[in-house]
Amino acid sequence: MIVVLKPHVEQERENQLIEWLKSIGLGVHVSTGEYQTVLGLIGDTSRVDTSLIESLDIVENVTRVTEPFKCVNRKFHPEDTVISVGDVKIGGGNFCMIAGPCSVENEDQIVNVAKAVKASGANMLRGGAFKPRTSPYDFQGLHAEGIRLLKIAREVTGLPIVTEIMNVEDLPLFEDVDVLQVGARNTQNFDLLKELGHTGKPILLKRGIAGTLKELLMSAEYIVASGNENVILCERGIRTYSDYLRNTLDLSAVPMLHELTHLPVLVDPSHATGIARIVPPMAMAATAAGADGLMIEVHNDPPRALCDGPQSLRPEEFDKLAGKVRAIREVIA
Amino acid sequence: MIVVLKPHVEQERENQLIEWLKSIGLGVHVSTGEYQTVLGLIGDTSRVDTSLIESLDIVENVTRVTEPFKCVNRKFHPEDTVISVGDVKIGGGNFCMIAGPCSVENEDQIVNVAKAVKASGANMLRGGAFKPRTSPYDFQGLHAEGIRLLKIAREVTGLPIVTEIMNVEDLPLFEDVDVLQVGARNTQNFDLLKELGHTGKPILLKRGIAGTLKELLMSAEYIVASGNENVILCERGIRTYSDYLRNTLDLSAVPMLHELTHLPVLVDPSHATGIARIVPPMAMAATAAGADGLMIEVHNDPPRALCDGPQSLRPEEFDKLAGKVRAIREVIA
Amino acid sequence: MIVVLKPHVEQERENQLIEWLKSIGLGVHVSTGEYQTVLGLIGDTSRVDTSLIESLDIVENVTRVTEPFKCVNRKFHPEDTVISVGDVKIGGGNFCMIAGPCSVENEDQIVNVAKAVKASGANMLRGGAFKPRTSPYDFQGLHAEGIRLLKIAREVTGLPIVTEIMNVEDLPLFEDVDVLQVGARNTQNFDLLKELGHTGKPILLKRGIAGTLKELLMSAEYIVASGNENVILCERGIRTYSDYLRNTLDLSAVPMLHELTHLPVLVDPSHATGIARIVPPMAMAATAAGADGLMIEVHNDPPRALCDGPQSLRPEEFDKLAGKVRAIREVIA
Amino acid sequence: MIVVLKPHVEQERENQLIEWLKSIGLGVHVSTGEYQTVLGLIGDTSRVDTSLIESLDIVENVTRVTEPFKCVNRKFHPEDTVISVGDVKIGGGNFCMIAGPCSVENEDQIVNVAKAVKASGANMLRGGAFKPRTSPYDFQGLHAEGIRLLKIAREVTGLPIVTEIMNVEDLPLFEDVDVLQVGARNTQNFDLLKELGHTGKPILLKRGIAGTLKELLMSAEYIVASGNENVILCERGIRTYSDYLRNTLDLSAVPMLHELTHLPVLVDPSHATGIARIVPPMAMAATAAGADGLMIEVHNDPPRALCDGPQSLRPEEFDKLAGKVRAIREVIA
Repeated sequence: MIVVLKPHVEQERENQLIEWLKSIGLGVHVSTGEYQTVLGLIGDTSRVDTSLIESLDIVENVTRVTEPFKCVNRKFHPEDTVISVGDVKIGGGNFCMIAGPCSVENEDQIVNVAKAVKASGANMLRGGAFKPRTSPYDFQGLHAEGIRLLKIAREVTGLPIVTEIMNVEDLPLFEDVDVLQVGARNTQNFDLLKELGHTGKPILLKRGIAGTLKELLMSAEYIVASGNENVILCERGIRTYSDYLRNTLDLSAVPMLHELTHLPVLVDPSHATGIARIVPPMAMAATAAGADGLMIEVHNDPPRALCDGPQSLRPEEFDKLAGKVRAIREVIA
Repeated sequence: MIVVLKPHVEQERENQLIEWLKSIGLGVHVSTGEYQTVLGLIGDTSRVDTSLIESLDIVENVTRVTEPFKCVNRKFHPEDTVISVGDVKIGGGNFCMIAGPCSVENEDQIVNVAKAVKASGANMLRGGAFKPRTSPYDFQGLHAEGIRLLKIAREVTGLPIVTEIMNVEDLPLFEDVDVLQVGARNTQNFDLLKELGHTGKPILLKRGIAGTLKELLMSAEYIVASGNENVILCERGIRTYSDYLRNTLDLSAVPMLHELTHLPVLVDPSHATGIARIVPPMAMAATAAGADGLMIEVHNDPPRALCDGPQSLRPEEFDKLAGKVRAIREVIA
Repeated sequence: MIVVLKPHVEQERENQLIEWLKSIGLGVHVSTGEYQTVLGLIGDTSRVDTSLIESLDIVENVTRVTEPFKCVNRKFHPEDTVISVGDVKIGGGNFCMIAGPCSVENEDQIVNVAKAVKASGANMLRGGAFKPRTSPYDFQGLHAEGIRLLKIAREVTGLPIVTEIMNVEDLPLFEDVDVLQVGARNTQNFDLLKELGHTGKPILLKRGIAGTLKELLMSAEYIVASGNENVILCERGIRTYSDYLRNTLDLSAVPMLHELTHLPVLVDPSHATGIARIVPPMAMAATAAGADGLMIEVHNDPPRALCDGPQSLRPEEFDKLAGKVRAIREVIA
Repeated sequence: MIVVLKPHVEQERENQLIEWLKSIGLGVHVSTGEYQTVLGLIGDTSRVDTSLIESLDIVENVTRVTEPFKCVNRKFHPEDTVISVGDVKIGGGNFCMIAGPCSVENEDQIVNVAKAVKASGANMLRGGAFKPRTSPYDFQGLHAEGIRLLKIAREVTGLPIVTEIMNVEDLPLFEDVDVLQVGARNTQNFDLLKELGHTGKPILLKRGIAGTLKELLMSAEYIVASGNENVILCERGIRTYSDYLRNTLDLSAVPMLHELTHLPVLVDPSHATGIARIVPPMAMAATAAGADGLMIEVHNDPPRALCDGPQSLRPEEFDKLAGKVRAIREVIA
């Protein structure tokens, strides 16, 4: 951590600060510049609250050299994390394809979509039971009934199930769910993250609506620091001034996250774009960028889907895409 | 609501769509253009899920004419909402000054700050007991003990208290709190909003970290549609590519929200800027822009504050600011 | 074009507006809603200044149905534009690889890089002679001498040359350049665009630093409407709040632009990311997303490059990448 | 400047780098941390190209401590710059009100608006002769004729005139113009900035459409380093995901720029918001934030203005606003 002092600080006040920094266990190297003095702090700075030091009136600014995340930092854990969900492995060179409808609507729908995506090579089934909707007047999901139907689809196809949790209070309903998803609006719902850290279950953590990579990693750190190492990151598009698409899918996040962390990184091109015909090129691009997997909305009847229909692929479109994705995986291997 | 059809749609399919729209209670006016046909939908469209219509393969795009929010829409409720908290009134020409530390630290601190800000003209006391922090290693607040200390400060000064709630499960702890604050990371925590809609208590709803005005109003709609009309909106800066300040305080949101909604609009210049010396000019600017009140961090010892010290004013700085703010209120009256 | 009138407009004023719209050659369809009246305008609205109509005090808002760009609109020109530069074809299923250093530094450098990238399959050579730099103290390019050196490299390798023009006054220097590049800071330098419209030369038009797709297309429209149809669009990353990378490469722009326009779309992953090791995954992703070509910085000695060294690939890295790119092209064909 | 080395760098390579840094005139202080070594560079680093050092493969990142701008940096020139335009003074506690139409349309219009705004206390006249328009089909200004009409209005009223220059080639037409404006699309048109640096004329430099404060200051540095110290900065709103207003007016830029630079800072609330009724509250807010002046669009017949009508005030609205602005100036004095 680098602390830049303001110009013309009194020597005595500078000495007091240095003493205090040493007292909390840090080493301090002093560089005296033409206008300003710079302190280099050495030791475990991940537990130092930057704003505390910035608040001192003799300090101009503070820059971290080592990242504030530790458990999820690749520097300290160079090996890829591999997460197992039944027979499916995520990360460490394994590629995972999660597919299914935005919302679970009824048994026929979810079972038929599950069969179709399994036939095309998907290895997990997604489907929303609790839906975060901007408007209170829009369909909010089937809740417990939705989870019951997902389990039926799992029984029929053998595919592990992934579904979103929005609220700590609902946790008992998710006991038999394979992967719990945290949506973009809850990426910084820290109480929820802490609780999920106590479950031990695989958590699919989406990037916030306008989240930075550091924030995503700090949210993952909340889960891992609470005792659960099974975190899967997921890029889903960020908010910009984009004029034709809902969000801007940030695929450069994939190789950048792979540098910063050992956790697997998936991409959801469906929510990012909001337009079904843009999903296949973005899914192929995400694969080429090195993603550890994809999460794609597939619906047997998109024009009548209760939620997010415009971004869902038909099963035959998904099937064609899945073949291309496998071919790209071979190219970049 | 305006529905633009794709070019060259078959007449029969167009007719089917029009029939269906009429069947859900809407009037339909048809305009046939050179390249494309446009449908004008008439009636209560606030409960129509735009994405459902957009998902039809004969539709190019859908634009709302009337806003999707209804309870909080000034068009349907032209009079300003005035919210009473004890003797304090918010909105409708009343100006409200909420001040206090970022976090409650101990009895001495909160009581002393409360006395000081009251003497300077503040009419409510703020103080965080539950703190959402990006890092799991940063101070997270005193929780129940923090609320207990706030109540002592209220007893001593008579100032109503405002504090943040992060989790539905904590609601019982807030029973005797005057105003419940929803922070920027929870603006779209819809389960929390619905629960707060059942309390009847005044809710201070902050704009999301990268929230649009429509999203803020839809989140307010969640609370009001659940039965609680006492919602106070709060602009607190939005995320941009700003290089010297933490967020970009969007003061144009104040007059714009006043047009769109009858709810009162406060401004928090402390979180928006993150730098104490930028707070007074922004507080004065917010007042000149017509805000219904301010929410300002004040601390008796900012350099030693446990959280967000750099953005806190000293009591004497707040006192000077409060005088200027009152003078500006007189100018714009 | 859809014009929404304010509520409670007097019938006489509405009639005046309708008459005026008809007088400028538009058809007008009127839809009377519960709260508001909506006018549908029919005819060639691309030459109607939206703000003129918005400025009327009886108008609430104006929405375009047909895009304001016409020459570059795929609706009116469904066939892909194919641009020829010597033997190289761009667009219409052809794939183009432009490579070379950020700046031309000296004869040895540019000739050696040119030979290397040609050997790896590049079909055009890039190199900056005029460099837009944020700081007046940074290297600004070799200017005329840089162009002279590029021509030598062209003579030696046969590769057509691409280089940036910043100023109308420099146009005579570019007479013998094959493709003129307009950089992200000049995307809306309309005087420059108009002049380039008179040259007939292929223009590589980069998206603005925070440009929307519509702005990019309107800038292309300036060139084409001035008489030059040879416009190549180039996505190069947009400004966001990204914390580890310089810009956010918006690959969804590729399929979206392909829908909106018949012009070819390239991607520059070097400027977008600013980090050499992120360039190959993004170049492969751009290819998988369907780009018509790539523009990549290659330098024989990146650590000593005078400009943008950190984002340049070494020739051997480019060679490896070029092979992968060709393989991905085959997959998506 | 702080240079953080990668972990595990060989001692010999580290020594080579240190020797090289010393050879270009910098002092180097070395701090050896647990994982990484940090170099503190001392001396005049404003002329060091950060990217050159970042490009070395043993370097992880580079952070500037002192700003890259020097001529415009308040650290080196603590006194406010005061710019004189005839009798008008800008900066250093003087307040300047620039008003007039978006575009000059005809003699009657510009003379009448000039008289009106003078009567209300404006001390300069604005009016566009060269208009940067997103669409090639929109009105582009009267050019030379527009400047001729501005001069007539100046003769009649005595108000100095401010108008936008888009192109180096047009410079001779501006010889007798008092203040030359650089628009948001040309903030990084470095060739134009350099030429304006040779004129000695007052330059009103607008912030870029998505410009950072550092970029604005570096653009000002181009002008001042070329020999012209008369630069007036102007905040005009930045691009965000704002949903009801054209741009987000960033008023926190005013106090922040006042800290960073000695140059005066104006605010243009008309372009920022695009809606006339939002202009007065934002103009008052800008004044309360400490701006050195305002630039406001006023038109005698906004609904028929050829350009940007919706954001223009009527003379009587401007008159009322000007009174409020003067009263706020007294409060904050």
